[in-house]
Amino acid sequence: MELKDTYKDELLNSIPIVSGMKVDIESLSEHEVCLSAPLATNSNYEGTAFGGSLNTLCILSAYLLTHHIMKSNQLSFKSLVIQNSKIDYLHPVESDFIAKASCSLKNSAHFKSMLEKKSIARIEIESQVTTKQSEKICVIFKGRFVASN
Amino acid sequence: MELKDTYKDELLNSIPIVSGMKVDIESLSEHEVCLSAPLATNSNYEGTAFGGSLNTLCILSAYLLTHHIMKSNQLSFKSLVIQNSKIDYLHPVESDFIAKASCSLKNSAHFKSMLEKKSIARIEIESQVTTKQSEKICVIFKGRFVASN
Repeated sequence: MELKDTYKDELLNSIPIVSGMKVDIESLSEHEVCLSAPLATNSNYEGTAFGGSLNTLCILSAYLLTHHIMKSNQLSFKSLVIQNSKIDYLHPVESDFIAKASCSLKNSAHFKSMLEKKSIARIEIESQVTTKQSEKICVIFKGRFVASN
Repeated sequence: MELKDTYKDELLNSIPIVSGMKVDIESLSEHEVCLSAPLATNSNYEGTAFGGSLNTLCILSAYLLTHHIMKSNQLSFKSLVIQNSKIDYLHPVESDFIAKASCSLKNSAHFKSMLEKKSIARIEIESQVTTKQSEKICVIFKGRFVASN
């Protein structure tokens, strides 16, 4: 089973509301995770993407990037949760969309080092939403996650 | 049909991912809106409430409060969208939960006045999440919404 499929089964589809969003993993690396979702299952009553779905896709992309950084580096952890976030909805999202989560090499290195030395570590992840047709950034999300073991 | 049922049908259940969350309207006034959701349909893979669901319930409570302020005052609007928000997840949510949205009289009065005078108005709404069993605040959300006509 491919790692993407494992993550999709174990992480994304184990969360009830996420399975209804029809999220897909477009790409996955230690530096960047791209998740996609169709507009049809994530629209609001104005016909554009619902803020709750946009925020949720950003959380998931950032969560999965953090999870993948730990798994790729054989760093064990018991819990990974979101501590805080902020989000700007810059433009309406009018078609199928992608959330791209990334984190700097410096942040990632610091996070890995802290988790090895201490029982708890925090990491800041940024995620940006575009549609599948355009590179225009419609949403900017910044979230802080806490891993502990 | 009661106003609560109308809102539930027209606003909440028209959003696909929200209908899966099993949201209920607990109370509704011009100053405060309380929405509830069960843990069972909103859990993450650690068994506590999923961050995406918590954020979404806060958005919905704040959105519905703004919507209700406009409807109650016969203020017409074509669009109501979220512009930005921030959220702090203070404690894990381990049972069925409630998001209580409120806004100050001053903010509400300013919003109503702007919408009457201009074609666009913004409002800041705070929403706090507690469980049904306790008054401990587990999540604090602040969001800014834009109404236009």
